[in-house]
Amino acid sequence: MLLSKYFLPTLKDNPLDAKIISHQLMIRAGMIRQTASGIYSWLPLGLKVLRKVENVIRQEMDNSGALEILMPTIQPAELWQESGRYNAYGKEMLRIKDRHDRDLLYGPTHEEVVTDLFRKNISSYKDLPKNLYQIHWKFRDEIRPRFGLMRGREFLMKDSYSFDVNEEEAKKTYYLIYETYFKIFRKLGLSAIALKADTGAIGGDLSHEFHILADTGESAIYYDKKLDEILAKKDISLDDTKDIYAMADDLHDPKNCPINQENLAVKRGIEVGHIFNFGDKYSKSMKASLLGKDGKEFYPNMGSYGIGVSRVVAAAIEANHDENGIIWPQEIAPFDVIIINIAPKNQDCVDICQKIYQKLTDQGKEVLIDDSNQTLGQKFANADLIGVPKQIIVGPKLLVDSKYEVKYRASGKKEILELSSLFC
Amino acid sequence: MLLSKYFLPTLKDNPLDAKIISHQLMIRAGMIRQTASGIYSWLPLGLKVLRKVENVIRQEMDNSGALEILMPTIQPAELWQESGRYNAYGKEMLRIKDRHDRDLLYGPTHEEVVTDLFRKNISSYKDLPKNLYQIHWKFRDEIRPRFGLMRGREFLMKDSYSFDVNEEEAKKTYYLIYETYFKIFRKLGLSAIALKADTGAIGGDLSHEFHILADTGESAIYYDKKLDEILAKKDISLDDTKDIYAMADDLHDPKNCPINQENLAVKRGIEVGHIFNFGDKYSKSMKASLLGKDGKEFYPNMGSYGIGVSRVVAAAIEANHDENGIIWPQEIAPFDVIIINIAPKNQDCVDICQKIYQKLTDQGKEVLIDDSNQTLGQKFANADLIGVPKQIIVGPKLLVDSKYEVKYRASGKKEILELSSLFC
Repeated sequence: MLLSKYFLPTLKDNPLDAKIISHQLMIRAGMIRQTASGIYSWLPLGLKVLRKVENVIRQEMDNSGALEILMPTIQPAELWQESGRYNAYGKEMLRIKDRHDRDLLYGPTHEEVVTDLFRKNISSYKDLPKNLYQIHWKFRDEIRPRFGLMRGREFLMKDSYSFDVNEEEAKKTYYLIYETYFKIFRKLGLSAIALKADTGAIGGDLSHEFHILADTGESAIYYDKKLDEILAKKDISLDDTKDIYAMADDLHDPKNCPINQENLAVKRGIEVGHIFNFGDKYSKSMKASLLGKDGKEFYPNMGSYGIGVSRVVAAAIEANHDENGIIWPQEIAPFDVIIINIAPKNQDCVDICQKIYQKLTDQGKEVLIDDSNQTLGQKFANADLIGVPKQIIVGPKLLVDSKYEVKYRASGKKEILELSSLFC
Repeated sequence: MLLSKYFLPTLKDNPLDAKIISHQLMIRAGMIRQTASGIYSWLPLGLKVLRKVENVIRQEMDNSGALEILMPTIQPAELWQESGRYNAYGKEMLRIKDRHDRDLLYGPTHEEVVTDLFRKNISSYKDLPKNLYQIHWKFRDEIRPRFGLMRGREFLMKDSYSFDVNEEEAKKTYYLIYETYFKIFRKLGLSAIALKADTGAIGGDLSHEFHILADTGESAIYYDKKLDEILAKKDISLDDTKDIYAMADDLHDPKNCPINQENLAVKRGIEVGHIFNFGDKYSKSMKASLLGKDGKEFYPNMGSYGIGVSRVVAAAIEANHDENGIIWPQEIAPFDVIIINIAPKNQDCVDICQKIYQKLTDQGKEVLIDDSNQTLGQKFANADLIGVPKQIIVGPKLLVDSKYEVKYRASGKKEILELSSLFC
C-alpha cells in the first residue's frame, strides 16, 4: 500500500479530550475517529488491527469446538420480558420503538436471543454440548462515555453461550473456554491473567475476569508471584492456575490474604474478558427444556463467555507503547513492514522501494510504503507512531553500496544490511 | 465438520410464512431463523455463505483501490439535519433517543457519516481520489417486512463512497465501480445485468441498478439480446455494455423502445446493487470543501455504491435451486464436499470417511461428514437441500472394491470412482 493512496490522518499532538494513552494514540495514529459520544468510526489502519484480533479469537474459538453464528443487533423486548431482565437492566440498555410502536432494543448482550434460538431448534440431550459464539457489535448506553474504546457505547464483542446436560459437563466447557482464553491472549502477544469474579447481573456462581497486564491499567491486581512463572510457560493449563491466588482490588482483602506480603505481586490490569457459568437461570425462565436420556425433560446448564474485541485493541496499546507511539505485537500489527524512502525524488530509491515492496508482498507480508512528501523527521515520527514492527529505510547513500537500513520498532535496534539479503 | 457436532436444524416442510423460494430454502436448510419481524439470526451454515459473499466483494473492492473502513451503526441526528435528510427520510429510519434524550438513529445509509469523516480529515485535492467502503449492518424499518432477507429490516450491506476533484474524474471512478460490480457478480457465480436507474432520494443524475437474473425475480427486465453474448464473455467492460438497451419494467416503455420486438429479451431480475453519482449534494450541504490546485476551495464530486450482501445470498438461491433444494455456485458454497456414510455402524466405512475427510481438509477443502443416525433417504434429501456442490457417498458394497460414489449436486450426475484417486 502506498501511503499517498491510503487514508491515514496522523496527528502530531494529543487531542484535548483524550485522557488515556490508548485513546490518544488511536486518534493520533489515524486508527479511529469519534462520530458521536462513545461512538467511533474505524479508519483503515484501525480496522486492520481490529480484524486481526477478531481472527485470532475466531480461530481459537473454532479450535475449541464452538460454532460461529450471528445474531441481530436489534432484539425484541419480549425475550427480555420473558427472562425478567427487561425492566431490571436499567438505562444502559438502548430502548427503541419501531414505526409500529413495538418495543425493541439494541442488544447489550445476547443470552435471551441465543436461548430463544436454542429452544426452537434443539430438542434432545443428544445434541449437547453446544457452544455458540458470535463476533458482533453491541451497544451499552454508558452514562458518561470516555477513554475512547475503553468505555465506549458501540463496541465489538465476542460472546459465546454454552449448553450442557448438567453442571459437571458445563464446568468442563467452562474450563475449556478458560484455557482457550489464555491461548487467545497468548497468540495476540498479550499477557493475560484470570481473576475470580463476582457474577453480577448475569447470575450464577462461577465466574472469572480476564485482564491484560499493563502499567496504565484501570485496576490493581494482587497475585501470588508463582503465577509469573506459570504465565511465562508456553501452554497455560487450568491445573497450573486454578488454585493460585489472584484478585482484583475490589475482592482483595489485605488482612485475610493467604499470601505473604513478600510473595505477593501487585500489577495493574485492564479487563478484556469475562466468563460465567449461570446454570439454568435462562434455560428455565425461558423454558428451553430438552428431552434427557431418561426420557424426562431437563433444563440445560448454561454459561456465557465474553471478550471485548475493540477493547482488546485499546488494551494492546496500553500494554505496548513508548513515548513515540504504538509498538504492535507481531500478530496484530496492521502492517508487517513500513518502507521509508528518504529520497522520494531519487528514481533509484523509488525503484528499489518498489522492488522490495513487491518481493515482501509476494512473500505474503503486508507492507506500507511512505511515498509522501513529508519531511524525514515527520516520516520517522509517523512510522514510530503507527507502530509497525519493522521499518526498512532506503536512501541514496546506502544504496550505492547496495545496502539499506532496518529499524525494529520494539527494541529500537538498527542494522545496516545487504539489499541482496532481501532478494535471495 | 461432523454433522453430529454441527448446528444444522434442517426442516422437511416449508414454513407457512415463507412465500418465496429463497426464504423457504434458507429456513429449511438451517441457514437463518427469524428473531423478530424482518430481523434474522444467522446459523453456522448461513453465516459461512454470507462471509464468502462478503470476502469476494472485499477482494474486488480492494482491487479497485477502495479502502475499507467501518462506520458505526448508530449515528447522531445532527449530521442528517445538516444534510437536510433527517425530516425527509420518513419512517424507514429507525429513530432512537439515548438516556440523555439525544436524537440518534440506526443508519439506513452512511452518506452523512462518511462526509463528516472526510471533511474532518482530508483537506487537499492532493488526497483525491478517495473511495471509502464498509461492509456493515444497516436497518430500514420496512412497513411490512417480508420475503425473508429480500425485504428484511436489519441487513448487511457493502456501501462505498467516492470523492473526486471534478465530475470527469468522478465518472471515471463511477465506471470503475460499474466494472468492479460485474467482476464481483461473475466471481460469485451469478449473472448480473446493469440497468439505467432513477436516482431517487440519494440525488444526482447518473445511476445504475444491478440485478441478478433469476426466473423468480421480482421485476421484469427488457434488454437487447446482444447483451447475452456480452454477459457470456470473461471480462465485461463498460465499452461493451454502456450503450446497450436494458431497462427494468418501471422505466421500459414498449412504445418508444429503440429495440425491435424480435431482438428484445425479457427476463426477470432481483436488485442487489445500486450505484449513484450525485455530485456535490452532500459535500456542499455539509461544507466538506477542499483546497484545490489553484488555491481555491472546492466541493468534491461524490458517488455512492451499494451491494445488499445479505440480499445477494437470497438472490443466489433464487437463481440456483431445483425442487430438492439449493445448488450453490462453487465460490460461495458453505462446504465444498459433503461425505455421506450410508452405514454409520460399519467401522470400515467410518474409518474411510475419516480418512477422506482428513485428506480433503489437508487440501484446503471444507468438508462436512453426515455421521448422523438419520435414514438414508433423509441424508440424501438433506445433502440436496443444503446444496453442497459435491457429495461423496461411502458404503460397504463399493468399499470392498475400494470404490466410492460421487454425486454432483448441479448436474445430478453420479460416478463410481476408485478410492485411490482421492489419495494420490
